[in-house]
Amino acid sequence: MATVREATFDLFRTHGMTTIFGNPGSTELPMLADFPDDFRYVLGLQEQAVVGMADGFAQATGRPTHVNLHTAPGVGNAVGAIFNAQANKAPLVITAGQQVRPHITIEANLTNRDATVGPQPYVKWSHEPARAQDVPGALARAINYAALAPRGPVFVSIPMDDWSQEADADRADRSLARTVTGRSAPNPDALAQLASRLAAATNPVLVAGPDIDASGGWEAAVALAEKQRLPVWATPATGGSRLGFPERHPNFAGILPPAIGPLGEALKEHDLVLVVGSSVFPYYPYLPGPLLAQGTELVAITSDPGEAARAPMGDAIVGDVALALARLTELVPEAQRDAPQARPEPGEPQQSDPLSGSEAMAALADAWPQGAIAVVETPSCTLSLRNRLRISEPASYYFCASGGLGFGIAAAVGVQLGQPDRPVVCVLGEGSAQYGITALWTAVAYKVPVTFLVLRNDEYMILKWFAMLEQVTGVPGLDLPGLDVAAVARGYGMQAQEVSGREQLTEALREAAAAGDGPRLVQVPVASGMWLE
Amino acid sequence: MATVREATFDLFRTHGMTTIFGNPGSTELPMLADFPDDFRYVLGLQEQAVVGMADGFAQATGRPTHVNLHTAPGVGNAVGAIFNAQANKAPLVITAGQQVRPHITIEANLTNRDATVGPQPYVKWSHEPARAQDVPGALARAINYAALAPRGPVFVSIPMDDWSQEADADRADRSLARTVTGRSAPNPDALAQLASRLAAATNPVLVAGPDIDASGGWEAAVALAEKQRLPVWATPATGGSRLGFPERHPNFAGILPPAIGPLGEALKEHDLVLVVGSSVFPYYPYLPGPLLAQGTELVAITSDPGEAARAPMGDAIVGDVALALARLTELVPEAQRDAPQARPEPGEPQQSDPLSGSEAMAALADAWPQGAIAVVETPSCTLSLRNRLRISEPASYYFCASGGLGFGIAAAVGVQLGQPDRPVVCVLGEGSAQYGITALWTAVAYKVPVTFLVLRNDEYMILKWFAMLEQVTGVPGLDLPGLDVAAVARGYGMQAQEVSGREQLTEALREAAAAGDGPRLVQVPVASGMWLE
Repeated sequence: MATVREATFDLFRTHGMTTIFGNPGSTELPMLADFPDDFRYVLGLQEQAVVGMADGFAQATGRPTHVNLHTAPGVGNAVGAIFNAQANKAPLVITAGQQVRPHITIEANLTNRDATVGPQPYVKWSHEPARAQDVPGALARAINYAALAPRGPVFVSIPMDDWSQEADADRADRSLARTVTGRSAPNPDALAQLASRLAAATNPVLVAGPDIDASGGWEAAVALAEKQRLPVWATPATGGSRLGFPERHPNFAGILPPAIGPLGEALKEHDLVLVVGSSVFPYYPYLPGPLLAQGTELVAITSDPGEAARAPMGDAIVGDVALALARLTELVPEAQRDAPQARPEPGEPQQSDPLSGSEAMAALADAWPQGAIAVVETPSCTLSLRNRLRISEPASYYFCASGGLGFGIAAAVGVQLGQPDRPVVCVLGEGSAQYGITALWTAVAYKVPVTFLVLRNDEYMILKWFAMLEQVTGVPGLDLPGLDVAAVARGYGMQAQEVSGREQLTEALREAAAAGDGPRLVQVPVASGMWLE
Repeated sequence: MATVREATFDLFRTHGMTTIFGNPGSTELPMLADFPDDFRYVLGLQEQAVVGMADGFAQATGRPTHVNLHTAPGVGNAVGAIFNAQANKAPLVITAGQQVRPHITIEANLTNRDATVGPQPYVKWSHEPARAQDVPGALARAINYAALAPRGPVFVSIPMDDWSQEADADRADRSLARTVTGRSAPNPDALAQLASRLAAATNPVLVAGPDIDASGGWEAAVALAEKQRLPVWATPATGGSRLGFPERHPNFAGILPPAIGPLGEALKEHDLVLVVGSSVFPYYPYLPGPLLAQGTELVAITSDPGEAARAPMGDAIVGDVALALARLTELVPEAQRDAPQARPEPGEPQQSDPLSGSEAMAALADAWPQGAIAVVETPSCTLSLRNRLRISEPASYYFCASGGLGFGIAAAVGVQLGQPDRPVVCVLGEGSAQYGITALWTAVAYKVPVTFLVLRNDEYMILKWFAMLEQVTGVPGLDLPGLDVAAVARGYGMQAQEVSGREQLTEALREAAAAGDGPRLVQVPVASGMWLE
């Protein structure tokens, strides 16, 4: 007869979930005992990084990904990263050990008291099985939930004495044999009506969000934009966990500003705004104004009921984004409008000493490896990076949509493990790097060949920019003197160097990306400033 | 007229809360604007470390301590440390910024959705004021809650547009003028009855817990033990966030084992067990057995209703520990029993190459600075450390009672900031150090003169020990190859070295402690093993 542990590992196998990201504690040992040869355990040294790695891996592979944490303190350390993963719609199946059942009521040390409350409100489902025999079924349910739209993290707490119990063979087998299909096309009538509105509009526009890429709708979005001659804006960068449209495409208009007033202003010439695969909208700084100009209508297509419900204006159609785009492209006529004007190429960047952020991004563009994936956590250079790289392939850009930090290093490691045949380049600020710094060790220990580029400006530039915007002065804690990520990376055993100047940076990035035998880190001092171009 | 911000800073002043530990984000800028000269802001680079520093500071000063975090992701990163602070009964007043009120319902980026849920279940009170005018009152309530028994963290979420609003002067002034006194002596009848039971017992014993020190009951505990000639056990080290009794005192018997069976066995000769200032008990590994032997009775005195309610055996008296001890000492007669036998001095430690943990702790004892405070996060050497240091002054030992890691470096920084005139020595494993590693930067940036001792054994020894206990093998992720904390510390700008051998270690620790101008770190390779003596 199979144990709960054996039945559970069979379930993971069935779903292809043979990579486990974790940081172990005593309560996890019984699960990890006699670890099967066909599984891979990726150790992280702090849970923020563990979940960040799994987030990158889940997004890069498109598969539910198992993260194993240590009871209350391990889950606690991970909550920020779980918040990130929820915003990124990463299908994480998070398990945590729990004290033995006879210890829970008396709250022995490391009891996960109110275990299901801990990761709230950032998981779709949180559960602790009432009996050992329910563990495989609970995990089957968790895997299904994580993978259904909107994708996101789920949590199961498992008492450590459950793993060696005998499984309920009937329940375990039935769980294992199930498939659950959740992608559903929107109501055909709603799509037909939208197609008519689009065809009848004078000057419609498409706003492309991250779920276009995540749902596999990239080509369909391009086909729709070309057939309807739609200019295409990217949803504000704040919510752009992935790109929804090729940024070198002649129809691509740029990235929407993230505040209510300016965003409404940017869309004011359009009579119909079609938002696809994004919330409406990932606003950040509060600059009030009309949500949309008079005469501008909006329709959003999203697979996320929450996004549909909370949008402050416009109509919404809930359903799978890729299926909706494909069907909509069939339904609309070839438009007779003028094709949008292509954006000009980025010009020569502003020069300075130290390097401007735009020069650093120009160097990055010059050194950009063919087929590379960008993982981005540089608040002061995100817009410049997007302008200069103009990434135009799907599944090639990952950014944390929550606004939280600590995603970059860890996610880059996870993306690289999930896409071993593509180069991965991670661009970070030296401040951002600190929220999940220990992922550097995992990159070294597992020889994960990510190229890290650290932009060092001795400050939290994004906060100084916000302070200007909010008209506040005299705020402490915005400077980061002597924070040298290259030195810390060397401390973790990584080959890391600081360079200066555009040519030296380009050369160092080319060498780092070509190395291929493990991670490399290149740090460059950059001038103070927000770099938009 | 005062703004909400001005009224709030006046409130903090009144409570002596002029040190703020934080990691700022955009939502905190309006609170931190025009930061007053009489306040100090201590910057941490990741929230786990920020809360850990505040935990140490709050315990070392005995005062409610303000921690300011960045909306949902900042609070999320801190949840593990909040769990630690709750177990340590550290009175933390945690505030976090929140989006502007007009952004919350539409869930703009960085909205702290369900803000009061985030830090649950690890705070005593969680609140978001319904109006800007209620912010000073909410913080007054939070400060009172944090300081009342059982002390612990509280949380207030504050929309960023509240700070510049006009305060309600009447409410703010009334809040400011209040004092709330919560220390209450237990029911005199219950104490009188307990005194009679103690006097009548044949072989009573005292179990001393951390709240003896935290409540200021150290001398009273010694007086009671001496008057009643009680042998004194320390509560299991797992829950020993502070010491409850001088460990060099002739009545001190040692540290109770943390499992049900062995603990009951250790107390079996006694007819009455008096537990003071501890849960009953901070059990950890599950080794079943009778909770107590037949004929052994137990009475616990605690200021924590939760500890009283959940104890699986014995009677409990809820009230202030120091007041109870003082009154009980008055009530009991001078006992005629034989005085307990003093423990033998620790012998020469086991020698090995690399150093045994016991040799490392012997070196630490030789180099121990006068009046020093220990902050301890070394699972494999905690018992050896306590045996060899035998700390015998109050407020001189801090350990994380939750079982979580990430407390050590940060708490040591906080304790040192709270006790600038005493030497602070922090003893860590290289694995433990990783959960809050960025606190090294704060130590450097603020020139906090902690001496760090890192014991490097290339593994999670405590997990290998648990695996033996749980009889599991084949667990991945228990080795830590190439993890060099001294190198990482140098990366953060700290003077750090690795030494080997007992003499070199003793010398290096003496030098580090004598430096006084900033932090120093000494790392020493130690042999694999759990070091109990």
